[in-house]
Amino acid sequence: MAEVGYVGLGVMGGGIAKRLLDAGHAVTGWNRTREKAQPLLDGGMRWGDTPREVAERSEIVFTMVTNTAAVCAVTDGPDGILAGLAPGKVYVDQSTASPDNTRALAARVAEVGADMLDAPVSGSVITLEQGKLSVMVGGDEDVFNRVLPVLEAIGPKVFHVGPNGAAVTIKIASNLQLAVQMLAFSEGVLLAEKSGIPRAKAVEVLLGTVVASPMVTYRGPFVLGQPDEAWFNVNMMQKDMILALELGRQLDVPLPTTATTNELLTAARGMGLAEKDFSILFEVLAAMSGVGAAS
Amino acid sequence: MAEVGYVGLGVMGGGIAKRLLDAGHAVTGWNRTREKAQPLLDGGMRWGDTPREVAERSEIVFTMVTNTAAVCAVTDGPDGILAGLAPGKVYVDQSTASPDNTRALAARVAEVGADMLDAPVSGSVITLEQGKLSVMVGGDEDVFNRVLPVLEAIGPKVFHVGPNGAAVTIKIASNLQLAVQMLAFSEGVLLAEKSGIPRAKAVEVLLGTVVASPMVTYRGPFVLGQPDEAWFNVNMMQKDMILALELGRQLDVPLPTTATTNELLTAARGMGLAEKDFSILFEVLAAMSGVGAAS
Amino acid sequence: MAEVGYVGLGVMGGGIAKRLLDAGHAVTGWNRTREKAQPLLDGGMRWGDTPREVAERSEIVFTMVTNTAAVCAVTDGPDGILAGLAPGKVYVDQSTASPDNTRALAARVAEVGADMLDAPVSGSVITLEQGKLSVMVGGDEDVFNRVLPVLEAIGPKVFHVGPNGAAVTIKIASNLQLAVQMLAFSEGVLLAEKSGIPRAKAVEVLLGTVVASPMVTYRGPFVLGQPDEAWFNVNMMQKDMILALELGRQLDVPLPTTATTNELLTAARGMGLAEKDFSILFEVLAAMSGVGAAS
Amino acid sequence: MAEVGYVGLGVMGGGIAKRLLDAGHAVTGWNRTREKAQPLLDGGMRWGDTPREVAERSEIVFTMVTNTAAVCAVTDGPDGILAGLAPGKVYVDQSTASPDNTRALAARVAEVGADMLDAPVSGSVITLEQGKLSVMVGGDEDVFNRVLPVLEAIGPKVFHVGPNGAAVTIKIASNLQLAVQMLAFSEGVLLAEKSGIPRAKAVEVLLGTVVASPMVTYRGPFVLGQPDEAWFNVNMMQKDMILALELGRQLDVPLPTTATTNELLTAARGMGLAEKDFSILFEVLAAMSGVGAAS
Repeated sequence: MAEVGYVGLGVMGGGIAKRLLDAGHAVTGWNRTREKAQPLLDGGMRWGDTPREVAERSEIVFTMVTNTAAVCAVTDGPDGILAGLAPGKVYVDQSTASPDNTRALAARVAEVGADMLDAPVSGSVITLEQGKLSVMVGGDEDVFNRVLPVLEAIGPKVFHVGPNGAAVTIKIASNLQLAVQMLAFSEGVLLAEKSGIPRAKAVEVLLGTVVASPMVTYRGPFVLGQPDEAWFNVNMMQKDMILALELGRQLDVPLPTTATTNELLTAARGMGLAEKDFSILFEVLAAMSGVGAAS
Repeated sequence: MAEVGYVGLGVMGGGIAKRLLDAGHAVTGWNRTREKAQPLLDGGMRWGDTPREVAERSEIVFTMVTNTAAVCAVTDGPDGILAGLAPGKVYVDQSTASPDNTRALAARVAEVGADMLDAPVSGSVITLEQGKLSVMVGGDEDVFNRVLPVLEAIGPKVFHVGPNGAAVTIKIASNLQLAVQMLAFSEGVLLAEKSGIPRAKAVEVLLGTVVASPMVTYRGPFVLGQPDEAWFNVNMMQKDMILALELGRQLDVPLPTTATTNELLTAARGMGLAEKDFSILFEVLAAMSGVGAAS
Repeated sequence: MAEVGYVGLGVMGGGIAKRLLDAGHAVTGWNRTREKAQPLLDGGMRWGDTPREVAERSEIVFTMVTNTAAVCAVTDGPDGILAGLAPGKVYVDQSTASPDNTRALAARVAEVGADMLDAPVSGSVITLEQGKLSVMVGGDEDVFNRVLPVLEAIGPKVFHVGPNGAAVTIKIASNLQLAVQMLAFSEGVLLAEKSGIPRAKAVEVLLGTVVASPMVTYRGPFVLGQPDEAWFNVNMMQKDMILALELGRQLDVPLPTTATTNELLTAARGMGLAEKDFSILFEVLAAMSGVGAAS
Repeated sequence: MAEVGYVGLGVMGGGIAKRLLDAGHAVTGWNRTREKAQPLLDGGMRWGDTPREVAERSEIVFTMVTNTAAVCAVTDGPDGILAGLAPGKVYVDQSTASPDNTRALAARVAEVGADMLDAPVSGSVITLEQGKLSVMVGGDEDVFNRVLPVLEAIGPKVFHVGPNGAAVTIKIASNLQLAVQMLAFSEGVLLAEKSGIPRAKAVEVLLGTVVASPMVTYRGPFVLGQPDEAWFNVNMMQKDMILALELGRQLDVPLPTTATTNELLTAARGMGLAEKDFSILFEVLAAMSGVGAAS
């Protein structure tokens, strides 16, 4: 069993930390607001006063934060993770952030003799609870093999994708499809509903067809009633769409469905729905077609 | 066991007829070109000289043809199915055609005392081979229950969706998502590939994420090499997109991702790829981003 | 001066008939509702009891009606224009209708020894009032030259475009740009407005830039206040977009901005704005961005 | 007559500097490559060794450079314009850059007691040659009035739009329409061409319709043959589209036609056409529809 650190204990990060604890690893954690970590602390996690302290106490230190800026906030400066790394340690970033930033960070980690991997996951809260996350990993293959036993505690499927930045690139390439699939699903549901099929029946039948990806399967029913708290809100989803669109411009890849869908995420924000789960795209489209929203 | 008829013995129709034979039903079949039906005839299917004769010999007669015009061609006229129907018989159309036409046809079938169901399937050749088709059924619920045992020989999942036209509407609502999901997947693969990840690796990893619908799972690998024969070609896919877009206009439902994707299907035709499987959308996008196509 | 007939005396058709009268031609007119024609009758126009009678009394008979179906309604049957044509007469259709229908109609007109031209105009009520219409003409060049003096009474700019159907094709190719330009203009105005520039100022300044087409110049100000009656409503505009999209599919031309804009016209209908001038696209976009509409 | 400075003597900046000289102003200029300025120097312009020196010698100093970064490069540092400003002087930026940067720059200019205006122009080389530029101005109204006589030497139409950043915002709101109008025009031309109308005829007739904005009028003919040197290339046009899209996200304004068109600019880059005039969008669309490009 390993000495493991986890920085960023939100819904996903916290859930992963719990899986690591449950697997028998010693976990030291840090979060911007300590109170959110209380259940984990009750379950045996130790507290680190700064990201640096977490890194100092761990062989492997993970981060899972909101965006590129938040990654910088926990890695840089005197209290940051980089200040706590040392030769032999591995820093694993599970955030969805800019691949360019990931590569730059990996170079700085290498300067202190440590190693870095980018290791985002595919899935949502429910996937995590079901123990079905898949972990995509970018970085040196030897380092990957060294950390693999710990990563397997997070998700049953662990893929080595390529060098640093490769995994976060694939994560972006996957996430753009989340929003597009959700909007296309909404188009289908509204067509069915306005032709007289009850919305719940349309959802049920569509989830029995070959378009029912795991994401559509767990998020599609949200068009019948939104969750109390967003699993992944419009702002977060749009952040990832913009990462995709920026990458597309950088690499000269036109992204027609991504661009189209992204403008409807902007509409969601315009309509005051920025904090809703991004499945609220259904409601944007419903408003455009004169259909009242799900209550 | 029932006396069953099957008109339209292409890849899907023929495969379904085989399942009906395998389940022990007596099957009479008809196809525009008889030679395609030879393996079924060798397997015990009887031949009807016209769609009308198939209907005359059957309690339940199925059709699975290309489009609305082809449905009319096998139902109308002196040799058509309507001429062979009689009270107590059930006509089941499995084609993806215009819901308005389906409803009109159901009314004409009712005039001769027979019943009609629309019963398209979700899935492709591979889904059929795996015995995982789902069948969506529109029409009277009593008639549905009467025919259910036969439908269950086609697919394990059989849904009653609503009145006549409802199932074909849901099929259209599902099919629009096929093309959109495929284009979004292509966007993701190209982003990954142009950032340095081998295409095959990108496909493998993306198929491990929550966007991997059954359709993406079986069709996604086509971006690594197209099948010898299209499973569902660009022309057929666009026919369904246009059914969706027409329905959208009729019902005032904006379909942003459908419309965007449909124009790239048009581009596929412009580039001479009309007969290719619609996963060729990848190649259209690749051409737009200056990437050579898969050989 | 010529004996001229005019069928379809709406805002545009009526305005053109008036110009023909003012130029000294003898005009016989017909309209579905006679009362709308009263001012023209007061101004010297004669009334024909049927489209056929109008054709019988005229050397050149014009039509300007809503769509392809309306063209058929005034040309076909015992009271239709075709029944009143004879060798030497010219039938000039100014409607925006399907080019295929135009060509089929031209062939039927030729069968009775008469000639047909398609001659749609570019411009709106205001262009007509300013005497700045341009007339695009499809058909035989000799026939064109024969009719030219009369056409020059309609618009100062008269172009011979090509054979039958060519002019209506160009009209469609022009009209798709109307809606796209209006939506792009709306995007610009909303960007300016939400960044703090008063809407009226944004419109004024944008109309001073190189994007100010004649159409944007007269229709752009509608975002500050809609006209009492639509100059060209959402339904009519969408009819032309669909003619363009159908032509695009027939000819394998992808139409990305047309398709995108057309879905927002559908949204306009979904929001109950079908009868508004299509500049109401601004209001659709404003609703999507959380901005209240112009009063 | 005023002491005027001009930094950035490219095609547009150089042309404006010439107009200022012709109007009788004393002009000091600077450009990254001096040789490009030779004709102006021959015409009486004085040379400043650095942007700072230009500012020191002038009452009003203009800049017209490529993008936000280039603005920073000529304003910042020991040789930058800010170092040469002093109370009473006015700095006028004519570049299309980020409105946020413009406002930040205006604040820094105010700190040294000088004033700043943003004053982009609408139009292209040809508009400049015809003396038909329009100048949009953001900043304090008194300062605007002080500088007005000099601005009127640049363009006959000069608008005060609002506070700092307002003019560059309108410029972005106008420029997004350039690319969209060009793509919509290309859609129209290709429809006409593939239906059998010669491309040159289609262009001629479309330029006689109400969609012919000044920009479409001078750039539309490029689909018949590209200029030797781009008037405004794909990279520059996309830079402005991205400014628009970023502003859209910041202000919650969905930009459907902008987003759609921007992806085709990316395709242009993917196809190796980044340095071509952005009217090359026609060629991208032509390739998608299987039509060979103009030679």
